[in-house]
Amino acid sequence: MLFTTNANMLLRPIMSRATKIARISSCACGGSGLVKAGSRRNIHIERRIEGLGIVLPTAPTPKANYNIVCIPPGENVMYLSGHLPVKADGELIAGAIGPDTGGLTVKEGYDAARTCGLNLIATLKSQLGDLDRVEQVVKVFGIVNSHVDFKHQHLVMDGCSDLMMEVFDKPVGYHARSAIGTNTLPLDVSVEIEMIVKFKPDVYDDEEDEED
Amino acid sequence: MLFTTNANMLLRPIMSRATKIARISSCACGGSGLVKAGSRRNIHIERRIEGLGIVLPTAPTPKANYNIVCIPPGENVMYLSGHLPVKADGELIAGAIGPDTGGLTVKEGYDAARTCGLNLIATLKSQLGDLDRVEQVVKVFGIVNSHVDFKHQHLVMDGCSDLMMEVFDKPVGYHARSAIGTNTLPLDVSVEIEMIVKFKPDVYDDEEDEED
Amino acid sequence: MLFTTNANMLLRPIMSRATKIARISSCACGGSGLVKAGSRRNIHIERRIEGLGIVLPTAPTPKANYNIVCIPPGENVMYLSGHLPVKADGELIAGAIGPDTGGLTVKEGYDAARTCGLNLIATLKSQLGDLDRVEQVVKVFGIVNSHVDFKHQHLVMDGCSDLMMEVFDKPVGYHARSAIGTNTLPLDVSVEIEMIVKFKPDVYDDEEDEED
Repeated sequence: MLFTTNANMLLRPIMSRATKIARISSCACGGSGLVKAGSRRNIHIERRIEGLGIVLPTAPTPKANYNIVCIPPGENVMYLSGHLPVKADGELIAGAIGPDTGGLTVKEGYDAARTCGLNLIATLKSQLGDLDRVEQVVKVFGIVNSHVDFKHQHLVMDGCSDLMMEVFDKPVGYHARSAIGTNTLPLDVSVEIEMIVKFKPDVYDDEEDEED
Repeated sequence: MLFTTNANMLLRPIMSRATKIARISSCACGGSGLVKAGSRRNIHIERRIEGLGIVLPTAPTPKANYNIVCIPPGENVMYLSGHLPVKADGELIAGAIGPDTGGLTVKEGYDAARTCGLNLIATLKSQLGDLDRVEQVVKVFGIVNSHVDFKHQHLVMDGCSDLMMEVFDKPVGYHARSAIGTNTLPLDVSVEIEMIVKFKPDVYDDEEDEED
Repeated sequence: MLFTTNANMLLRPIMSRATKIARISSCACGGSGLVKAGSRRNIHIERRIEGLGIVLPTAPTPKANYNIVCIPPGENVMYLSGHLPVKADGELIAGAIGPDTGGLTVKEGYDAARTCGLNLIATLKSQLGDLDRVEQVVKVFGIVNSHVDFKHQHLVMDGCSDLMMEVFDKPVGYHARSAIGTNTLPLDVSVEIEMIVKFKPDVYDDEEDEED
């Protein structure tokens, strides 16, 4: 099989380029996403992640009747489901932020938002095979588990925004964002973040193809 | 008139295919959305809904200065406004979820989320005329009215996700999703859900037209 | 320089039309967004705003690692970050809505939502140069800072929806919308609103170019 089950949402846009792919590569493909073993692959972003000392967690997999991402057929836009702050060791960062009333500190919230961001990037890598295919981090929406007196959700969400800029830089990582508070979240996680990303059609295009 | 007022957002994409429609059908059209009486119509999904014993409620109509959906001109993507859990008899499902502190149970929340989903599908049918035109349920965003100690918003939102998969199945119904809690919602509804859907241009296309 | 720093997200779609722009205008450009001094410019919407006695605030500028808007490369859709109710004099409208429990009134919430809307329109003008380029207000998502007993977030959000319809009218201003409550927001603002807008490629197109 060319593609793993996890990447099946990508089949339609990719398949429409089957001829091109066949021309370039003999497709001795492994089983990890869309990465082609032995083929020309861009690893600029992944080298930067290594240089930053970042270790990506395992990409999350929903256990219910929804997908971790959805790509509308024929489009190059990926909607990422709400991601939770799961650390590399599998532990969830839980609890509301509210340092003045016994809750987590802003720094702890910031780390939770950064951890959500690492999970989002792990999903991008799992889905796209190659993080250099990320063309634009379009929109980040973050919901911060908050005590009612906590009013700095934006400082918490900087944990995710700073990460996106460290990893993807301007203009790719420079996103629109909303940060809100709420009284409670699934599994008591400290932060939940969803994202919209535009990506390049496949790993074999070096030039941008915007002349549609 | 060819189209009802409710479907006026659809006029632009549909009109651009006027020649094609004229060629296929003599357009003896009734007044219900885009459904053409006596023409070739796909009712695969609607038969499935009947088979499941599901009765759709009346599609909701906003009473304020916004629309129940918006389709960006020239696109095949529909943004559905936040939908409430209005039962077929018109009653709203209200109250926060929080079984340990006197609130509604997870099962009651699940039913509320499913009822939101039925209203979303009723809107899709009203706007598209034919549910077989749904090409992809892209994104579901659900907000669960919650006591502060309630941490299972994801199990509540399964009421909507399960419905989408029952009705549309993979890959059409397999969506990205976020589920969050909140302390209060309009009219004290138990759940509010918004959705993004990609649809096919018109009911007369059997083949997919993705080669733009 | 042709463009201000603030409008740099627009460079890619605009630059792809460089030839066309060069043909029409000698580009004696000022520094305010994409407005061309002395060129043919549509000011229908801005005249309407003046007629309504509306004074737009200064467009907000994020101080953190995200942008006030994001336009996916090659697309005509703008995602506007969560906007706050900053009045023309720079003061924030703060506090939760909840008239029965000592909070702000519905009217005060309505004004806060309208003020968010004015900031969103100020951002649109700053980014597009010309508000007549707004093709469709697609989606408005509003989060209302609420006491737990307050259940009329929809009446608060009418402050933004009414404004969009006053300024842009049907069909351009007729948007999809969700309104939710929450227990707390950044800087204790009363309302936060994000928006998705479809816009026309440039100010020199009078005709719509939807025949893609």
